[in-house]
Amino acid sequence: MEKGQRESWRIALSCPDKRGVVAKVSACLAELGATILEAQQHSDEVSGHFFMRYEVTQDEATSQASRWPQKHLEDGLADLKRELQLDMRISSLAYKPLVALLATKASHCLVDVLQRWRSGELPCDIACVIANHQEMGEYAGWYDVPFHHVDFQGQPKAEAFKEVDVLLDEHGVSLTVLARFMQIIPPALIDKHPGRIINIHHSFLPSFIGARPYDQAFERGVKLIGATCHYVTADLDEGPIIEQEVIRVSHTDTPADLRRKGRMCEREALGRGLRLHLEDRVFIHGNKTVVFAD
Amino acid sequence: MEKGQRESWRIALSCPDKRGVVAKVSACLAELGATILEAQQHSDEVSGHFFMRYEVTQDEATSQASRWPQKHLEDGLADLKRELQLDMRISSLAYKPLVALLATKASHCLVDVLQRWRSGELPCDIACVIANHQEMGEYAGWYDVPFHHVDFQGQPKAEAFKEVDVLLDEHGVSLTVLARFMQIIPPALIDKHPGRIINIHHSFLPSFIGARPYDQAFERGVKLIGATCHYVTADLDEGPIIEQEVIRVSHTDTPADLRRKGRMCEREALGRGLRLHLEDRVFIHGNKTVVFAD
Amino acid sequence: MEKGQRESWRIALSCPDKRGVVAKVSACLAELGATILEAQQHSDEVSGHFFMRYEVTQDEATSQASRWPQKHLEDGLADLKRELQLDMRISSLAYKPLVALLATKASHCLVDVLQRWRSGELPCDIACVIANHQEMGEYAGWYDVPFHHVDFQGQPKAEAFKEVDVLLDEHGVSLTVLARFMQIIPPALIDKHPGRIINIHHSFLPSFIGARPYDQAFERGVKLIGATCHYVTADLDEGPIIEQEVIRVSHTDTPADLRRKGRMCEREALGRGLRLHLEDRVFIHGNKTVVFAD
Amino acid sequence: MEKGQRESWRIALSCPDKRGVVAKVSACLAELGATILEAQQHSDEVSGHFFMRYEVTQDEATSQASRWPQKHLEDGLADLKRELQLDMRISSLAYKPLVALLATKASHCLVDVLQRWRSGELPCDIACVIANHQEMGEYAGWYDVPFHHVDFQGQPKAEAFKEVDVLLDEHGVSLTVLARFMQIIPPALIDKHPGRIINIHHSFLPSFIGARPYDQAFERGVKLIGATCHYVTADLDEGPIIEQEVIRVSHTDTPADLRRKGRMCEREALGRGLRLHLEDRVFIHGNKTVVFAD
Repeated sequence: MEKGQRESWRIALSCPDKRGVVAKVSACLAELGATILEAQQHSDEVSGHFFMRYEVTQDEATSQASRWPQKHLEDGLADLKRELQLDMRISSLAYKPLVALLATKASHCLVDVLQRWRSGELPCDIACVIANHQEMGEYAGWYDVPFHHVDFQGQPKAEAFKEVDVLLDEHGVSLTVLARFMQIIPPALIDKHPGRIINIHHSFLPSFIGARPYDQAFERGVKLIGATCHYVTADLDEGPIIEQEVIRVSHTDTPADLRRKGRMCEREALGRGLRLHLEDRVFIHGNKTVVFAD
Repeated sequence: MEKGQRESWRIALSCPDKRGVVAKVSACLAELGATILEAQQHSDEVSGHFFMRYEVTQDEATSQASRWPQKHLEDGLADLKRELQLDMRISSLAYKPLVALLATKASHCLVDVLQRWRSGELPCDIACVIANHQEMGEYAGWYDVPFHHVDFQGQPKAEAFKEVDVLLDEHGVSLTVLARFMQIIPPALIDKHPGRIINIHHSFLPSFIGARPYDQAFERGVKLIGATCHYVTADLDEGPIIEQEVIRVSHTDTPADLRRKGRMCEREALGRGLRLHLEDRVFIHGNKTVVFAD
Repeated sequence: MEKGQRESWRIALSCPDKRGVVAKVSACLAELGATILEAQQHSDEVSGHFFMRYEVTQDEATSQASRWPQKHLEDGLADLKRELQLDMRISSLAYKPLVALLATKASHCLVDVLQRWRSGELPCDIACVIANHQEMGEYAGWYDVPFHHVDFQGQPKAEAFKEVDVLLDEHGVSLTVLARFMQIIPPALIDKHPGRIINIHHSFLPSFIGARPYDQAFERGVKLIGATCHYVTADLDEGPIIEQEVIRVSHTDTPADLRRKGRMCEREALGRGLRLHLEDRVFIHGNKTVVFAD
Repeated sequence: MEKGQRESWRIALSCPDKRGVVAKVSACLAELGATILEAQQHSDEVSGHFFMRYEVTQDEATSQASRWPQKHLEDGLADLKRELQLDMRISSLAYKPLVALLATKASHCLVDVLQRWRSGELPCDIACVIANHQEMGEYAGWYDVPFHHVDFQGQPKAEAFKEVDVLLDEHGVSLTVLARFMQIIPPALIDKHPGRIINIHHSFLPSFIGARPYDQAFERGVKLIGATCHYVTADLDEGPIIEQEVIRVSHTDTPADLRRKGRMCEREALGRGLRLHLEDRVFIHGNKTVVFAD
């Protein structure tokens, strides 16, 4: 409950048509006794789709009597949801969704997410770390997070991903973060978690798509390199972009230097993108995102 | 009318108390037949003040019958304005307020604003250029804008500012931009145009307050320099900040290099800050601003 | 003569092998009575090529006797040039090479270069503006620069480019800047001016190669857009990159907004890249550049 | 030995007068059989002081016979050192100076330096973590670094700093990093380690000097906040600046948000500044620095 002491909620809504929607939603919120702290609305003029995000709190009068359960808002908005065909997500600012972190050998993104989480910067809980190399186990141990090694070399990839699938289910995760996982996720697993797998790609997409972006950047002689945090879709490196970051480089930088500088971009783009997602500021809209900035 | 073909309006509102305000305002807008394109709301938790900005358009049904005059919105919101003690500004996206540019000898900010304006980037009209040096007359001439030279050396400053005052009145300007004017505006003139005089200060405030910020930056050996676009208040260099910009510098930069690099920051911070103001995205709140980003 | 009052020279050198090169060059400079103000050296480890840049001035003792002609340095370094197979460029800081600006209809880059030049920020003279639309003539007139309209619609492009070729020859230009020229330069013209045609591409290369980068950026939903200043080679959009710039964008930005924001990047990348070239800080090395930063 | 397989050295030199210095130093290096990989020189025109940095490697011919000891360079340059009054530092790229990290309760800078070090990004070894709170001991443990708790509350500060002094001596550290230590270092300790104590200040100096910069930034309503990495001198917050970083903030950011966003700047400015120092790229010159960028 970062903002004030009373419980607050995030309400993220979108709908195909927008006539009077803000009025209806905010009237309904007022009736329910909710005070709006922060709100943003956006109408996509190409598609006509409408997006809204509210941060609300129980107003003082009613909060002194008794605390709401979240159901108060859900039930209160239920009719409107039907009427306006709202896609609606409600979550308490105090709610901490479960996140799984998938990694390989590079530790910088993994450690950064774990440390941000431990510092209270990320409104989530880390359910587990899953990696195809044992080295990551030590980091998970430091942060007291369950670690699962999945063997991607001694068995077919399909089998390995079946293990991952089972682990995600067992932990009941709401979000999977590919913290430099470097494995292509099978379509079935993506379909099972729509809009709930986030990747950090180590280039400024759409530049340098593929596996060796820093070497490509070195070859091309660019003066800035970057990283891209995006949702995973069936089209590799083509998912909706959440956040991007760049850093200046020069002719003195070897590919190893680019990798080192790029790591700063990667963890920064992932850290920010992840927080935007967890605060329910991101709406996927086709192959793009609407991001209500903090 | 950048966004779509129908006429659109910006409505900027703020009020001391916030219970149900969004609901009431948006219900009223819906009743008036206004479709919300873009909206942002913010509650300042320290002061309890509430800020809203809407971009609305006449909805399709009513727009096919007849076009609204702006009065339609003003009259329609009048009761609410009284009830909620709304501070309210309404302007058509097609409306172009009159702006006066005040300059001295440095041309970079003046030319940049004139060129942005000519390119259609700034929703305003330039009423005139006023300068205490004749050199700026040539630039005004290029852009076909009236030029007024006011002598600040051959007469007392109070007299000179009286001339400025008369000129601003004669041109009926809504906004005065100090595009590196380098003269301290008398309090009476500031009071006459509250929140309607914008300055570009050639440092990253509050660093290097005063007249020679680049020399100060050189002496201190900073690694970034900047510029600040702010509203002018009686407290010099202390007015509410609208926008800031920085650029990297190094030990090889002489004070002349800092001035050259700083000019890029100045015109960028001024250009962006000015546009934010003209699009009615800025609310002055005490000594700070609420800026609903574009 | 920005740095101090005595005349200073830039010496840009590169050579295939590097043993003792710095020693020999700087010993030779010392013998010639040149004081080093600023110097940078870089060895490309992949190719083994070596790059050097010096800013030197005549030392006090000799400068009080008589001023050097540039020939003093050229002759003094001639033996070394042969011995070390030096690619060598020497220019006085006071020297102003002649630059041609080619434009179409978009004025932002053209005006920005003209204004930087007029403000003394660019160590060059503007020989002429050449454009395939008459509108640019007005800007050339403001800055008192010869204007040539070349018709690219009423005659075959080859004919039009022949006119351009003749104009560049007549003006004796050392550098041609495509300030949003939007025409593909024929290979023969490129070969005639190797490393002496600079383009500003309106995207963060290698993203969005081609003619409509802002629309592509809008479609892809990127969160940063950019611009690239590069040398023109026969491979379109593939020439050695000198400088790049980016700016943050969001879901609220229409393609028109991207174009507007992108213009700021374009002129900034071009202004900086052009200055780097004019100060002889850029070495083309294969498809990349070595840029000794200011 | 990041750059190539042969051993390489950094040579950082400065001297009061500059006539022929580059020639003499590089001639001497050539005679010694050193190949220059990268070099930068700068003459401070105000003071006339000259700064040089070389990265050299043993040339192929001599390296096949036998490897140099560092003494080869030191002895070889000794005469020149005397003659030119060179302030000279030589270090192998493989050399890892010992660094002590001092912290309080905030972990972000401490963990970031430890993680960068573990990832091989920082050419140093971490001698120990010293903190006035026990919490930091866990992090030191993770990274297998000795931890020392020094009590700053149960004893006079002078006593506590005597303990710190002894610890720094016992560990034989060459550099002390105040990773958000928040205690004012006594002048005697500073004098004992001239130019060898680095601090990260949580503001964009010289803005918001003092203990609560984020609250000051909130009050002032700035649109960018920052962090400054600098050498510690007797004048608090006035030491020579090595590196600075900024990040955009807005009216929605509470002081807690500023602190969170600022942490990213702090660790970034510290990580970069520390690396610049460790690579011997930084020269202190009066109250400023010359930083030969990587």
